Amino acid sequence: MNLRSGWLRKTLFATALGFVTTAPALAASDDGKVTDFLLDNGMEVVVIPDHRAPIVTHMVWYKVGSADEPPGKSGIAHFLEHLMFKAATTNHAAGEFDRAVSAIGGSNNAFTSFDFTAFHETVVPSALEQMMSFEADRMFNLIVNDDDIKTERDVILEERRSRTDNNPQAALEEEVDATLWQNQPYRIPVLGWMQEMEKLTWTDAVEFYDLYYRPNNAVLVVTGDVEPGTVKALAEKTYGKVAAGPGLPRIRPVEPEQNTKRTVTLTDARVSVPGFSTQWVVPSYHTAEPGEAEALDLLAEILGGGSRSRLYQQLVVKEGIAATAGANFRGTMRDATRFTIYGSPRGNAKLADLEAAVDAEIARIVKDGVTDDELDKAKDRYVRSLVFARDEQPYMAYLYGSTLAIGRTVQDVQEWPDRIRKVTTDQVKAVATRYLVPDRSTAGYLMPKTEN
Amino acid sequence: MNLRSGWLRKTLFATALGFVTTAPALAASDDGKVTDFLLDNGMEVVVIPDHRAPIVTHMVWYKVGSADEPPGKSGIAHFLEHLMFKAATTNHAAGEFDRAVSAIGGSNNAFTSFDFTAFHETVVPSALEQMMSFEADRMFNLIVNDDDIKTERDVILEERRSRTDNNPQAALEEEVDATLWQNQPYRIPVLGWMQEMEKLTWTDAVEFYDLYYRPNNAVLVVTGDVEPGTVKALAEKTYGKVAAGPGLPRIRPVEPEQNTKRTVTLTDARVSVPGFSTQWVVPSYHTAEPGEAEALDLLAEILGGGSRSRLYQQLVVKEGIAATAGANFRGTMRDATRFTIYGSPRGNAKLADLEAAVDAEIARIVKDGVTDDELDKAKDRYVRSLVFARDEQPYMAYLYGSTLAIGRTVQDVQEWPDRIRKVTTDQVKAVATRYLVPDRSTAGYLMPKTEN
Repeated sequence: MNLRSGWLRKTLFATALGFVTTAPALAASDDGKVTDFLLDNGMEVVVIPDHRAPIVTHMVWYKVGSADEPPGKSGIAHFLEHLMFKAATTNHAAGEFDRAVSAIGGSNNAFTSFDFTAFHETVVPSALEQMMSFEADRMFNLIVNDDDIKTERDVILEERRSRTDNNPQAALEEEVDATLWQNQPYRIPVLGWMQEMEKLTWTDAVEFYDLYYRPNNAVLVVTGDVEPGTVKALAEKTYGKVAAGPGLPRIRPVEPEQNTKRTVTLTDARVSVPGFSTQWVVPSYHTAEPGEAEALDLLAEILGGGSRSRLYQQLVVKEGIAATAGANFRGTMRDATRFTIYGSPRGNAKLADLEAAVDAEIARIVKDGVTDDELDKAKDRYVRSLVFARDEQPYMAYLYGSTLAIGRTVQDVQEWPDRIRKVTTDQVKAVATRYLVPDRSTAGYLMPKTEN
Repeated sequence: MNLRSGWLRKTLFATALGFVTTAPALAASDDGKVTDFLLDNGMEVVVIPDHRAPIVTHMVWYKVGSADEPPGKSGIAHFLEHLMFKAATTNHAAGEFDRAVSAIGGSNNAFTSFDFTAFHETVVPSALEQMMSFEADRMFNLIVNDDDIKTERDVILEERRSRTDNNPQAALEEEVDATLWQNQPYRIPVLGWMQEMEKLTWTDAVEFYDLYYRPNNAVLVVTGDVEPGTVKALAEKTYGKVAAGPGLPRIRPVEPEQNTKRTVTLTDARVSVPGFSTQWVVPSYHTAEPGEAEALDLLAEILGGGSRSRLYQQLVVKEGIAATAGANFRGTMRDATRFTIYGSPRGNAKLADLEAAVDAEIARIVKDGVTDDELDKAKDRYVRSLVFARDEQPYMAYLYGSTLAIGRTVQDVQEWPDRIRKVTTDQVKAVATRYLVPDRSTAGYLMPKTEN
């Protein structure tokens, strides 16, 4: 899978939007306490106990994603993720790991994103050692053969056809990404470009595996009904036996300054409802000056985070020209990221009407800023969602793993609520003024064929 | 310099447009006869005698350009071209080569493009051996030092500032290129992105030099008052002594299929006259099916090659809405290339009016094709320009050098007039229909600030 769908993303998004509804009391004194340490070979380990149910989530994160792929080899990160399930190792036959998980009633999966690749299992605590043993084994002992390459390449090609090529919205997003990013590798789709995926070889996969699948390039996160000491002992016994690889500086091409307004229009007979999105290049938590990313998160919330947001209230409720309208900030990327506003017209309204209304809302924030009241409410929703999220074992594993995999720290996660609390209305106004410049944006339009 | 300006480009373009006015008779029996051979170390040599004047043009072409640069190192090809003039070698002090050329009243220069880098001198025939000796020496013996890096990097940064950043048209073209090309490396400017140029190092330059500046990756072209046998003996004595490097497969990322219409708008107070260009991804002579590139060349000529073209006649003469209008096809690239239509409004006409008129002209060719008469005239102009060009010594050196440097052959150059002659009206209509699709185009708009 890749990060465009799946339970993790749903969980993450639902949480970020504050829709989490269960919040039972914590069950034991060390529940939620984060322990982190390094193995001798450089592998980072994070343990978050949660004793409310006899279950553990075990995730291994590799600090490599599609944005680290060599030129012309797009899709190799995701392809290798697939091969990790398809191939045998020197110690286990192909499929043995999957069957072991099923046999104990567990679940497992993996996902690839721009900045990382992760593998995870949710099982009973007694099976943790077995999971770690299997996962450590395929970190080093994978045997990719040419038959696996051929059959699994067909699988990823079909995945691309069904997810992107047969989906006008996804096809548009792909070209919007490649238009927004003119140098930074986020312009390349995680699944890969079809013409390059078709040519991925055994050599490509093995070179990528040998370079990146090493303990010093990985983060282990274990959440659930387990103690840090136990995890440490098991990690040393399993992952600790894998030799470190060379250090890998993660140097990526940087985006040049944008001087233009860009548009990308996909007109397709399969489109029934038109839609638009406008995006801007903005800093991520990893690249921003202190407070800027937090201000962008709150700006997205105030402008377009749900039905109480300015855009929703103005375009959907008051003017009645939009069926949907919202905003989001993808702050968790390793490099510069995007701030997005999107909408879809209602009735006879035109995209141009929606865009004019959006521009007016941006201009209003740039001129008058936001109110103390809406900023406080936005902060409350954000911080509350994180408090609730502490009870979501897979989400906590995701949050820490994804943060550490891009070079941020446990402290960054833990201080985040405080940092959100400190954002001022001036800071929100400042980031809107600095970044949401209409002449420096990239818009995508999805249009039905008949409108042409 | 890079290929965006300079006498070579002017010569090339003037010739392609048929503006060459001098056509003296050939002076000796072997004049214009092309001899080509390989040295033992793999260096290709082309000699074209021309005894009308006691002068020779000597060019060395390296099969490497900005499109071959490693990720994040944009500008290194052009930077190295500069360093070739700045640095000393093991045999000559810095500047000695330049002074030798000046001392004999010769001229010299170099240029970098997407697909190649070339160094050339025009001198009296008796100085040819000295030129070859100098050029062979700096193919292998360059000594780049850190002081050269620092001072010459400032030069290229200033070149970028003056050519691109201080020129709204050039700044727009750069972002249009990066929007048209979403994967193929022509999206990266030849001069480089500023933020990457600033960080180019000694190591970057030396690695690039060691890898690409090798005789088996170079083409020597000598035109002028000289015999092939003489050139061969001198080449063996000079370049022949340089050891071959490893073979370099030139594998470049390929452009995915375009499914969208894209626009890029630069609005700037320094713009006084608005303008637009629309471009399409099309095959080059190197990548096209037989006859397609020739048909695209003739389509560009009929649609927009000068004041007799359809676009000029319709937009400038008849409707009076445009001050300029034209089309061109950049067929000489190694990979897929662009077909461009451009225009600038007159009086109160809007860019949208011009674009509608352009769309109508395209639709007319797609529906009705072109006439036998206009096709014949376009062929005549093309072929005549090449015949005239045979008398332009630097142009012939450019034509053969640039063709061979991208992997095409002497035969390709020589058969080109015949291939142009064979194009049918159906073929011209077919390429217009296949490639000039409005929903799959990329347009650039240059707008004065006040219009906003």
